[in-house]
Amino acid sequence: MSENKVIETDILIIGAGPTGLFTVFEAGLLKLRCHLIDYLPQPGGQLTEIYPKKPIYDIPGFPDVLAGDLIDNLMKQIEPFNPGFTLGERAEEIERLEDGRFKLTSHKGTVHIAPVIAIAGGLGCFAPRKPPISNIADFEDRGIEYIIREPEFYRDKKVVIAGGGDSALDWTIYLADVAKELTLVHRRKGFRGALDSVEKVEQLAEAGRIKLLTESQVVGLKGEEQLQGVEIKQKGADNYWLETEHFVPLFGLSPKLGPIGEWGLNINRSAVEVDTFDYSTNVPGIFAIGDINTYPGKLKLILCGFHEATLMVQSAFKIIHPEKKVQFKYTTVNGVNGF
Amino acid sequence: MSENKVIETDILIIGAGPTGLFTVFEAGLLKLRCHLIDYLPQPGGQLTEIYPKKPIYDIPGFPDVLAGDLIDNLMKQIEPFNPGFTLGERAEEIERLEDGRFKLTSHKGTVHIAPVIAIAGGLGCFAPRKPPISNIADFEDRGIEYIIREPEFYRDKKVVIAGGGDSALDWTIYLADVAKELTLVHRRKGFRGALDSVEKVEQLAEAGRIKLLTESQVVGLKGEEQLQGVEIKQKGADNYWLETEHFVPLFGLSPKLGPIGEWGLNINRSAVEVDTFDYSTNVPGIFAIGDINTYPGKLKLILCGFHEATLMVQSAFKIIHPEKKVQFKYTTVNGVNGF
Repeated sequence: MSENKVIETDILIIGAGPTGLFTVFEAGLLKLRCHLIDYLPQPGGQLTEIYPKKPIYDIPGFPDVLAGDLIDNLMKQIEPFNPGFTLGERAEEIERLEDGRFKLTSHKGTVHIAPVIAIAGGLGCFAPRKPPISNIADFEDRGIEYIIREPEFYRDKKVVIAGGGDSALDWTIYLADVAKELTLVHRRKGFRGALDSVEKVEQLAEAGRIKLLTESQVVGLKGEEQLQGVEIKQKGADNYWLETEHFVPLFGLSPKLGPIGEWGLNINRSAVEVDTFDYSTNVPGIFAIGDINTYPGKLKLILCGFHEATLMVQSAFKIIHPEKKVQFKYTTVNGVNGF
Repeated sequence: MSENKVIETDILIIGAGPTGLFTVFEAGLLKLRCHLIDYLPQPGGQLTEIYPKKPIYDIPGFPDVLAGDLIDNLMKQIEPFNPGFTLGERAEEIERLEDGRFKLTSHKGTVHIAPVIAIAGGLGCFAPRKPPISNIADFEDRGIEYIIREPEFYRDKKVVIAGGGDSALDWTIYLADVAKELTLVHRRKGFRGALDSVEKVEQLAEAGRIKLLTESQVVGLKGEEQLQGVEIKQKGADNYWLETEHFVPLFGLSPKLGPIGEWGLNINRSAVEVDTFDYSTNVPGIFAIGDINTYPGKLKLILCGFHEATLMVQSAFKIIHPEKKVQFKYTTVNGVNGF
């Protein structure tokens, strides 16, 4: 096997969501180079992975913008600064080299070296909340999906959805027209989602277009290579098997810090504590910006991540070029000069 | 004379620049009403008054946007929340009423009452830097202008510009084609502006299309109702009078806090000191956001004002509705519901 590639940069950004991307812009104005690492296969974080077609209304200056379009705009905005990307790899291990720089190794062994690390990891690694079924891992991606990425994937299939929130309700309504057979299984009698959606689901059930099983749970799975059936446990009834090609438990995503939790940073409720002066963590040279950090008054909003990234790069500059003074320039005077 | 109108609102925002405008949006999401007061005759602050056609490159999500278009977008974004405006009036006097609310009176006597005041005054009232000529006030708006608002105003007129920076150079280049006679007066030999502009001005002078007087100053003014001439003092020469209809000293704008400086707020170098938890000042109920505030690490950027406004309204809500809990909602789930 060949040697692992070593990537050197000024600021290594963990997380290529909107905050991580905009960091490249603000760093670039100070002539600092950036490289981003993200576990997802494309830049944009949740915005491209989970809701690219959802309109966002609270980005200043955009009365509305699709999440995916915002990411496209940010990619265009940072293009002059030519950032590097390590995609589809998780930031795994970190160590400090003798020269003071950090060495970060991905779970695939890619090595990154930088004097500054900016953690812009959003809510961390997203772990879907899974039902406690012993053999569930055997069927993951073989009939079990925790996120619906492409509804057409379920066209003319037998599908069982589980969950009681908006996600389960919305997808049930949507897939009622797509799947061959659709069953919604929910542990309780009432739903947590929007009243309007609950009514629609009940109407679909009454019209016989979906099967609605409340006070029920999926407690078993069977199949060969692919999932073939789920075991239903309904209150006051005997367990029985329901034939299905897909089982989609939509119990939400549970954010997890992942390996970042092991790096000696001060963590408070799954978020990294920072100083709002420059969003530095307790480890000199490591900053945390965007949804992953916490401080008094913190709001998990994209526009706050933009601000945090901007203040952060000022301190990053001082670490990277201790001998130089930051030249703060307005882009209206000088425009954007890339590299 | 009739009674002065009294305007009541939840948050009275002083300054209708980008930060003040976006405050309306974030306040609106919490069902708080806003009213803005600005000395300028239209919303947008510097962006519409000074550089509406200048591209800005550092607004996140906009690879570039004209300053005037950004304001148009913000106006559209806050439309659902139906803000009030008092334009062309300066926030002058403030007093606290017995019920704890503030009463703010404009220099024209308009009365505003609100439990919360957000100062989003940008760099304050802009005062142009004026040359020290004793009778200069007599000719203001009678041939002396400190900002060029509409270049066509100078069509076929005799014009003297003074200054050595980009503004003086750029307008000299522009007005060379517009004015009947154009003279640029600069105190020093060299200019501070972009090299490219300096060369253009020198070429215009060599071609006889403008008169260039370096190491010179305007030291006297004469005229009846309107300006008729300026007295030139040139190094190593006798003073002489130059006939002109307009004298435009472009020595830059000197920001001044104006009356806000008298409200008992902690001021540091013409900026209002705030706590970054919620951008509150030392006076409970008064907040300061955007370029007018200062705190460790402060950067005077529009995107920082957006963040500050967003955190600020959370505390404003608690003052306005001490009995309620802030319901923090993401717009992607609920959209924007105006009032």
